[in-house]
Amino acid sequence: MSLYPRPAVKVCQCPRMSSKKSAVTKWIPPRVRSLHAYVPGEQPKVSGLIKLNTNENPYPPAPKVLAATRAAVDGRFRLYPNPTSQPLREKLARLHQVEPANVIVGNGSDELLALAIRTFVEPAAPGTGSKSIVQFPWPCYSLYPVLTEIHGAVAHPVPLRADFDLPTVAELRRGRQWDFRAALTLITTPNAPSGRGYTLAQLDALCSTQRGLVILDEAYVDFAESDALELIRQHPHVLISRTFSKAYSLCFQRVGYFVGHPELIGALDKVRDSYNVNGLGQIAALATLDQLPYYRKNFGRIKATRERVRRELTGLGWRVLPSATNFLLTEPAGPPARTWLEALRAEKIIVRWFRAPDVNAYLRITIGSDDEMNRFLRAVRKIGRAE
Amino acid sequence: MSLYPRPAVKVCQCPRMSSKKSAVTKWIPPRVRSLHAYVPGEQPKVSGLIKLNTNENPYPPAPKVLAATRAAVDGRFRLYPNPTSQPLREKLARLHQVEPANVIVGNGSDELLALAIRTFVEPAAPGTGSKSIVQFPWPCYSLYPVLTEIHGAVAHPVPLRADFDLPTVAELRRGRQWDFRAALTLITTPNAPSGRGYTLAQLDALCSTQRGLVILDEAYVDFAESDALELIRQHPHVLISRTFSKAYSLCFQRVGYFVGHPELIGALDKVRDSYNVNGLGQIAALATLDQLPYYRKNFGRIKATRERVRRELTGLGWRVLPSATNFLLTEPAGPPARTWLEALRAEKIIVRWFRAPDVNAYLRITIGSDDEMNRFLRAVRKIGRAE
Repeated sequence: MSLYPRPAVKVCQCPRMSSKKSAVTKWIPPRVRSLHAYVPGEQPKVSGLIKLNTNENPYPPAPKVLAATRAAVDGRFRLYPNPTSQPLREKLARLHQVEPANVIVGNGSDELLALAIRTFVEPAAPGTGSKSIVQFPWPCYSLYPVLTEIHGAVAHPVPLRADFDLPTVAELRRGRQWDFRAALTLITTPNAPSGRGYTLAQLDALCSTQRGLVILDEAYVDFAESDALELIRQHPHVLISRTFSKAYSLCFQRVGYFVGHPELIGALDKVRDSYNVNGLGQIAALATLDQLPYYRKNFGRIKATRERVRRELTGLGWRVLPSATNFLLTEPAGPPARTWLEALRAEKIIVRWFRAPDVNAYLRITIGSDDEMNRFLRAVRKIGRAE
Repeated sequence: MSLYPRPAVKVCQCPRMSSKKSAVTKWIPPRVRSLHAYVPGEQPKVSGLIKLNTNENPYPPAPKVLAATRAAVDGRFRLYPNPTSQPLREKLARLHQVEPANVIVGNGSDELLALAIRTFVEPAAPGTGSKSIVQFPWPCYSLYPVLTEIHGAVAHPVPLRADFDLPTVAELRRGRQWDFRAALTLITTPNAPSGRGYTLAQLDALCSTQRGLVILDEAYVDFAESDALELIRQHPHVLISRTFSKAYSLCFQRVGYFVGHPELIGALDKVRDSYNVNGLGQIAALATLDQLPYYRKNFGRIKATRERVRRELTGLGWRVLPSATNFLLTEPAGPPARTWLEALRAEKIIVRWFRAPDVNAYLRITIGSDDEMNRFLRAVRKIGRAE
């Protein structure tokens, strides 16, 4: 079910340590022993490499964001940061026209996704029935099944259409696979790894019929034409997940947030670690919200580059899926995707390939700067000629 | 059982949001509804205030730590940080003469404590018996019962001696309360909130007899005369918890770590969020390890100030417990502790008072700079004269 191969176990036997292996294994619950760890995209340190594999933004944060962060590197390091990210929650609330009580900030949205599963889903136990199900249209952000497994709940992937579109509610009803009572349903919107955007009407219809909680994970929404934040006003059981990582060039600083009903936010807050968000992360995110025009200009540049790359790849015979994100899912012309992955790597260009059968025909290509994408396209043409 | 009063619920009803309260509550599992949230020490923003309530270090990080952090505030923000804190784990491994596989780094040691409970403890379920017990000599770091409750496991506090010393194994056997098979035992050593240090022999004896996992939480160990890190070499079921927050003046940056058997570290690693440690946090911690003489000098200053304050308070008739930390637990002369708390607050000095019956006769006073402690002692004398 995982998009990833089971990783090499990161454990090595330290010769200086006691090594009663069987004695130690017994302290690790079977649930954890059998876990399939999430494998993040590689972060190679080769110079001159073009990194189009983890959907990072090619443009740096606004200069004023860096200046504000730099200015906060001082004696305050000795003090705890604001435990509830209060100033940031206030500013996000103003941005989204909600109250601070509608907002929770996390150490990246990954922390909040894990927190949501821990908060709202009871681990599987005999007799709990559908309460322990975490459901997601599949493929999606591949962290969801990992977090579900970690929690000991049941991951319930339901296939998207072949074109990665969301099935209609009527189709879901007919399909019988979909669980309208799942404790938690996670929807990556726009979708990753396909890049496909969903309309407000589609998401609204789905949320309307869902009896359990729904999280709309809008990690890439700033590269789309519309968002679904307004759904929280009609649906108290819907949470919106956002991140500063992708659109706001702050991966390094780990800041994400949820917006939703204050009772749900309050429940998450009780389970949250007290000082979960780094002080400089809070400061960088605050400064980011003062520089939105800078970032919006970058969204425009990335979308323009995305369209150009889509056209050029299509011209080379690649099948390119429509994208509302900062990446393109593509079916390369000629050799299989995995061969392209290796050929591009030989050209010092790293893209993402997934092993899972439903997506292993594709490469996922992050939209970099124009220069990076020109180098990528040159490499594609060169490899294509050599075939 | 908690050292804290049940906090005011942080939920407020946002008028712009749908407010079907009962409809929303149903999505929150009873386990979460009934949680007693951990209440961190307050972080007031009043200028001129002397903050002796959260055991922060009065001295800033080494100048080179700030310089290294500042120098890293640049375009790299757009990239993900090292997902496994690899360079930091390598450096910590050299420091402690272990292998990187013996080390896991967290977003503060709080994250790792929560992670350990989630990894090694199966939530309570009928028939699981002692497997779901999280045990701790009490009083201790008051986060442990909160994390245990969140996970749905059973918190099992066992009283320390009246002088906050650890009972001997013989005493524990006689007492019948101690569970030698508890899934996880957490020991704050040196102890908080008392400040009391435990000897290697005491901890060794306890670990030797314990069938389940043991975490020795050495958050304050740099202010003590000895540590227990070597116990991981004899006991594969013992993990050591450390933090950069207190001794290394990095609260703001959220970096802590565990050292232990690679199989246990590997299990924690599977449950950990992929990018759990902020990039600048990793850089600041790395730079800190190059400046240890600076910090050791500060430990000496803080210990000297601690002894002076202990002597002076004792001279004023206060009972002061022995401390191997950067704080003192004290029973004030004259009015009850809570009255002193308020009187000191009126003098713009914030110390910590705990509501729980076993410690509510005490004030916990963080050791600040000499200037701060002089102001504190002047305030104590002034309040004492007014009584």
